[in-house]
Amino acid sequence: MIEPTEVAVSGERIRVAYDLTGPVDEAPERVAAICVEQTIEFPADLIADDGIRGEIIGRIESIEAVGPELSHAEVSYAVETTGGELPQLLNVLFGNTSLLRDVKLTDVSIPESLARALGGPRFGIDGLREMFDAPERPLLSTALKPMGIAPDRLADQAFELAAGGIDMIKDDHSLANQPFAGFEERVRACADAVRRANEATGGRSIYMPSINAPHRLLEERVRIALDAGAGGLLILPGITGFDHMRDLAVRDDIGVPIMGHPAFLGSFVSSPTGGIAHDVMYGTLMRYAGADLTIFPNYGGRFSFSEAECASIADASHRPVAGFRPIFPTPGGGMTMSRIGEIVEFYGNDVALLIGGDLHRGRSLRSSAEAFRSAIE
Amino acid sequence: MIEPTEVAVSGERIRVAYDLTGPVDEAPERVAAICVEQTIEFPADLIADDGIRGEIIGRIESIEAVGPELSHAEVSYAVETTGGELPQLLNVLFGNTSLLRDVKLTDVSIPESLARALGGPRFGIDGLREMFDAPERPLLSTALKPMGIAPDRLADQAFELAAGGIDMIKDDHSLANQPFAGFEERVRACADAVRRANEATGGRSIYMPSINAPHRLLEERVRIALDAGAGGLLILPGITGFDHMRDLAVRDDIGVPIMGHPAFLGSFVSSPTGGIAHDVMYGTLMRYAGADLTIFPNYGGRFSFSEAECASIADASHRPVAGFRPIFPTPGGGMTMSRIGEIVEFYGNDVALLIGGDLHRGRSLRSSAEAFRSAIE
Repeated sequence: MIEPTEVAVSGERIRVAYDLTGPVDEAPERVAAICVEQTIEFPADLIADDGIRGEIIGRIESIEAVGPELSHAEVSYAVETTGGELPQLLNVLFGNTSLLRDVKLTDVSIPESLARALGGPRFGIDGLREMFDAPERPLLSTALKPMGIAPDRLADQAFELAAGGIDMIKDDHSLANQPFAGFEERVRACADAVRRANEATGGRSIYMPSINAPHRLLEERVRIALDAGAGGLLILPGITGFDHMRDLAVRDDIGVPIMGHPAFLGSFVSSPTGGIAHDVMYGTLMRYAGADLTIFPNYGGRFSFSEAECASIADASHRPVAGFRPIFPTPGGGMTMSRIGEIVEFYGNDVALLIGGDLHRGRSLRSSAEAFRSAIE
Repeated sequence: MIEPTEVAVSGERIRVAYDLTGPVDEAPERVAAICVEQTIEFPADLIADDGIRGEIIGRIESIEAVGPELSHAEVSYAVETTGGELPQLLNVLFGNTSLLRDVKLTDVSIPESLARALGGPRFGIDGLREMFDAPERPLLSTALKPMGIAPDRLADQAFELAAGGIDMIKDDHSLANQPFAGFEERVRACADAVRRANEATGGRSIYMPSINAPHRLLEERVRIALDAGAGGLLILPGITGFDHMRDLAVRDDIGVPIMGHPAFLGSFVSSPTGGIAHDVMYGTLMRYAGADLTIFPNYGGRFSFSEAECASIADASHRPVAGFRPIFPTPGGGMTMSRIGEIVEFYGNDVALLIGGDLHRGRSLRSSAEAFRSAIE
């Protein structure tokens, strides 16, 4: 038995929604178990009727049967359970509950005090529109590919794509530090190519290298990238950690836009009855973690996301969230030039289009880039 | 069209198995798409018959129909696609494919050159047996709980648990840097308590604080922990990143055992048709990432893992893997004293038992710890 404990809290709460699949009459017990699991992870009968029971264990706000085998629960947690830190926020939201069967995290909202502690996206939609002098149009992005070619050829691509008017030229997320194109040589060459193209055309394109590095080399690779003149960074938070991305977003000595990539994050959204809802993972959590742009596989490509799932991600990228700046949904994944009109109609102008391999189908890379830019304008 | 490219590779390959759910006659096309997705992510028809096609794109080793709607595929990738780095290895194994429907990663093996580059577990079973002077018996571990109580009370628990003979006393994974028990004060108090208990009893218990910190504070918290005398570290690689854990495991200036916790990693294993197989996630990948002990929810507790899934994790913890040391499977999640005999019978002696809240049910924490130790000996 744990002796009675007084707990001082602010009263500010994180609100979380979970969908539970299974008999609705079992939902109250399952939700109560989640409230314990995500906080004290301790037999609740060994806790006195005290501050821990009242303030630390999650609180059931509501449970509603929304189908014969589906319940929607709202739970709140004292903001103090997170210590004001993103890693522990993720842990409170879904750490152990990710291991429970048939529970899906479907919504999160955090108090503004926690949002201020996290920081959020530095640029967001307004900041990027100013950076690219693009007050209204969708933004354009593409990737340098494929793995296997040498830095000078990737740099040639970067030059042509920037000269053709692509705003953001990122590394393919598969480019790390392979012998075919080592990180430093590649990044210097590509950053230089984009700079030369901008000088030649008066453009504002940026190069965004991928920082998917071993833990101890993350800082060194970011520094190499910024010193070389990279205008932004591509981050894979599913591999290097959400707080790694957040840290880069908030640091004044970084100060460039961050593009979040969904690699290794697909399993969170693949189950209809478990995991994390698409909009929470690729919208809300990406904003908590400071992404200015969030890449996800567009519907109708080679991946599995539906129109509704993509629309929900776009909505969670744009809507008011704890004072965070709205960010650009960045649908990609086998997108083609022929779909530009449809994609813009679907998402509206506050979207960044990501077209990769298809730009290589045209007469030349520059002419494809120019056609991409023209189609948008 | 990408111009023909020569690619120099060693010939060493990473071998990967995927299970594909769906019509078996579609499997060859789907596997070919995975081979492209995980490497060049580029329209294969725009690649010449060259080094990229021959060496960079994944190679189909075999495809077998194992059911009316299930195919088993083996694929290999040139080791150079990873650049010898764990983050990019994870990306090659399952980065974008995590976003495909009905593809499950079921096996991985890496050449010894890559294993040497990763480093692997520092202690493993033999090292921990020597550390605890426990040549044959299962190891004992428990967690300091619950969130909400003050550092001195957590330290009192730590003292009693160490005096009672528990080998590894870890922070509950929910303890981060909350106002109830700030990281530094808690860690100093608990490490000191375990040291005092060891001095009193001649025991060898260690305290393993949880390092679930913001990116920029990870190193500082590790340093605080080691300076305070922590004898090991609890790491949540699903949140702070697999390579963060690996880095701690291989660094000579750390030099303490690492316990890997599965928080936020449950969604990878919850789908029968997607994600990552239990043994790969909690066995193989945890060893690649340097864990000496891998915590997972035991069958028959409050989580969803089956006996077969738990047995597969234990097997992947023990069997020869690329020269890595075998590690301790550490089943937990609502384990009780009454199940000790059954658990040891199931896993054998090369297991670390993790019993948390149930130790608080007895007459005193020390007597429960002593009973736990006696039951094992």
